[in-house]
Amino acid sequence: MTRFIMAEENSRIITGEDKIFGINKQAQEMISKVGREKVANATIGSLLDDNGNLVILSSVVDVMKDLKPNDYAEYAPIAGVPAFLDAAVKSVFMDYTPKGYINAVATPGGTGAIRNAVQNYTKRGDVIMTSSWYWNPYMTIAQELERDLETYPLFNDNNLFNTDAFEEKMKEILSNQDRLVVIINTPCHNPTGYSLTLEDWDQVLCAMKKAASDQSKKIVFLVDAAYLDFAGDAKMSRAFLPKLDGLPENLLPLIAFSMSKSFTLYGMRGGALICLSPNKEITNEFKLVNSFSNRGTWSNGTRAAMVTLSRIYKNDTLLEKVVKEREAALSMLIRRGKAFQHASEKVGLVTSPYDSGFFVIVPCKNPEQVGEELQKDGIFTVPFGGKGLRVSVASISEEWCSIIPGKMAAAIKKING
Amino acid sequence: MTRFIMAEENSRIITGEDKIFGINKQAQEMISKVGREKVANATIGSLLDDNGNLVILSSVVDVMKDLKPNDYAEYAPIAGVPAFLDAAVKSVFMDYTPKGYINAVATPGGTGAIRNAVQNYTKRGDVIMTSSWYWNPYMTIAQELERDLETYPLFNDNNLFNTDAFEEKMKEILSNQDRLVVIINTPCHNPTGYSLTLEDWDQVLCAMKKAASDQSKKIVFLVDAAYLDFAGDAKMSRAFLPKLDGLPENLLPLIAFSMSKSFTLYGMRGGALICLSPNKEITNEFKLVNSFSNRGTWSNGTRAAMVTLSRIYKNDTLLEKVVKEREAALSMLIRRGKAFQHASEKVGLVTSPYDSGFFVIVPCKNPEQVGEELQKDGIFTVPFGGKGLRVSVASISEEWCSIIPGKMAAAIKKING
Repeated sequence: MTRFIMAEENSRIITGEDKIFGINKQAQEMISKVGREKVANATIGSLLDDNGNLVILSSVVDVMKDLKPNDYAEYAPIAGVPAFLDAAVKSVFMDYTPKGYINAVATPGGTGAIRNAVQNYTKRGDVIMTSSWYWNPYMTIAQELERDLETYPLFNDNNLFNTDAFEEKMKEILSNQDRLVVIINTPCHNPTGYSLTLEDWDQVLCAMKKAASDQSKKIVFLVDAAYLDFAGDAKMSRAFLPKLDGLPENLLPLIAFSMSKSFTLYGMRGGALICLSPNKEITNEFKLVNSFSNRGTWSNGTRAAMVTLSRIYKNDTLLEKVVKEREAALSMLIRRGKAFQHASEKVGLVTSPYDSGFFVIVPCKNPEQVGEELQKDGIFTVPFGGKGLRVSVASISEEWCSIIPGKMAAAIKKING
Repeated sequence: MTRFIMAEENSRIITGEDKIFGINKQAQEMISKVGREKVANATIGSLLDDNGNLVILSSVVDVMKDLKPNDYAEYAPIAGVPAFLDAAVKSVFMDYTPKGYINAVATPGGTGAIRNAVQNYTKRGDVIMTSSWYWNPYMTIAQELERDLETYPLFNDNNLFNTDAFEEKMKEILSNQDRLVVIINTPCHNPTGYSLTLEDWDQVLCAMKKAASDQSKKIVFLVDAAYLDFAGDAKMSRAFLPKLDGLPENLLPLIAFSMSKSFTLYGMRGGALICLSPNKEITNEFKLVNSFSNRGTWSNGTRAAMVTLSRIYKNDTLLEKVVKEREAALSMLIRRGKAFQHASEKVGLVTSPYDSGFFVIVPCKNPEQVGEELQKDGIFTVPFGGKGLRVSVASISEEWCSIIPGKMAAAIKKING
């Protein structure tokens, strides 16, 4: 029996609970009581400056404000503005040119790209695979499309990427179905901040190739690259991309591109799904099915966001300006991450392997209670999967990043003994 | 067997054919050969001025360009910016206040609203119902969600709204399933330009109430109001809305609101799904399930579009300016429609009942061939459902509207005898 009167649950688990929203609200309430400087609101998934204001690349907003009326008003083509799709590919690949065929379709942010990948490369009832720590909306997307999500433990006992678990889980799922979409969120995995090393990639690809040697299997791996520009050196962060070239035809790499973080246009819903294949027919059918999905879901994307990115990539001086501004934001974020790591080492707080990015995970028992204990000191974090606390270093100052690990170590000790 | 290599068809019929795009391209080619004044491109679904330029409400774009950086950059809440949702409701209802409970959720344009309605009030495999002439994306949306679309003939032999057929089709579908979403596109139905009269509404509601007297049935009717502001007098066009008040709980009205036409922000993807019910629990669950759908499909909507509408409705002077500008566009459209009707009467061309709006349908046999015949005279129309030609009076001048009916009558005579 559904608990709804008129609506249909359709295999989804719809609780309406928004834990992050609730904790964020508590943080806001405390700020209004005791003042901003006494509260660290480490719940927010956007990059904020030390005063709690959203970091916005003004060079990008300047382009947005300078568009012609038509750029706001006109429909974009269903598949996206062609110059935008080229720019999205350039933004991901920079100066590397993939050897195979490439195609792209515009989507509302990264979420739309992930949704389209799941919709077009699996069937209802199929299992999607990702790591044990994962961005919660992966589950929402899977459920909305009546798919299931299963996970492998991201790290092994030595806190290294768990290739064995990856391979085992993949085999297990493929013994029950002939298609598989694997979501790999890297670099700066949300919520751990881990980036797959080139060796991790070799192992992952080796495992997937092995599975794909069975020609009856179709394996699609979706690289969720939302944080691609927040992993440190731009070229190093992209060093894995050439490995996606020349794979077997039945092992298909897709990339979810988003303007949200890289161009700080979270609210403009600019994104794309990109496809690479040695077989042109496969990239053509990619375009076809994803255009159909666009038409039957949200129709077309935000033209203004698309034209903004196109303009940036048409103008080297402008692009350089955007990149410089982003690098300043990035170094602030890197300083925060390092401060958190150093402080953690100092007090012996164990975090999940963190390379860079918006979030750090501190695994612990009873994260809800530990989180509540921390709130007494004005520190607001998000209990995650019953297995730890997520700290957004993106939304708190470097100073707080130095303070919090000590407080966390104390809170964990107090609660868990 | 699927004809795809890697992708899944998932019960969709994905042809990739875009007839309108193709004809539009031919029109463009002819324009570049013989000049704009010799070509009537009546394929386009946007309101163009007599020179073929998009009509853009400059008062709206001014607001858009004047937003604060945060309004472009920040994420909107998943369900939408609250002030936007209020503004969307005001935009639909004007000074009428529904007596029951009301709730709304932001969506990317009207398409997103329709998609969410189908997703949340039917199950996979269910049949959705609309009229025989219909906007093609209804079928795309149904297929993308693995639903079927079935139709009743919109007009009876006297060219009046076919209530009997409506009722019969509804009964037929409800004998096979306990849920039904009915899409009613009014005023200015796309593609005919027909608006349900208040008497039509009484009959439709009477039929639906009868069906809903069986308490085991859940009937949701979605009013696709995309052209609400292009039906003539704003209050008259909204006179049906009070009839949606106080219906039985298992007969649920939803309204798809779109900023595309009313605010000429086609490309900004501002829209909302609105729900009315005498039962608050039903509007609460509406919010809950549609928020889940948002999260798992496109995440959140375009904040800049939402803030633009909020600002317009917060400022009476500004709203008046927008309305005045829109009324000027509307009277141009009305003049065109009238010119087309008068010319049709003069030459004895029979059109489907047209009240107002962007499109007129001329029913005829062999529409493909008739369309090609018309192209020789520089007139580009869209063959529709194998049953007629769709003429966009929104995209051609009043002069062309006077000329085309005669040309159509001649072409039909030539092809069909």
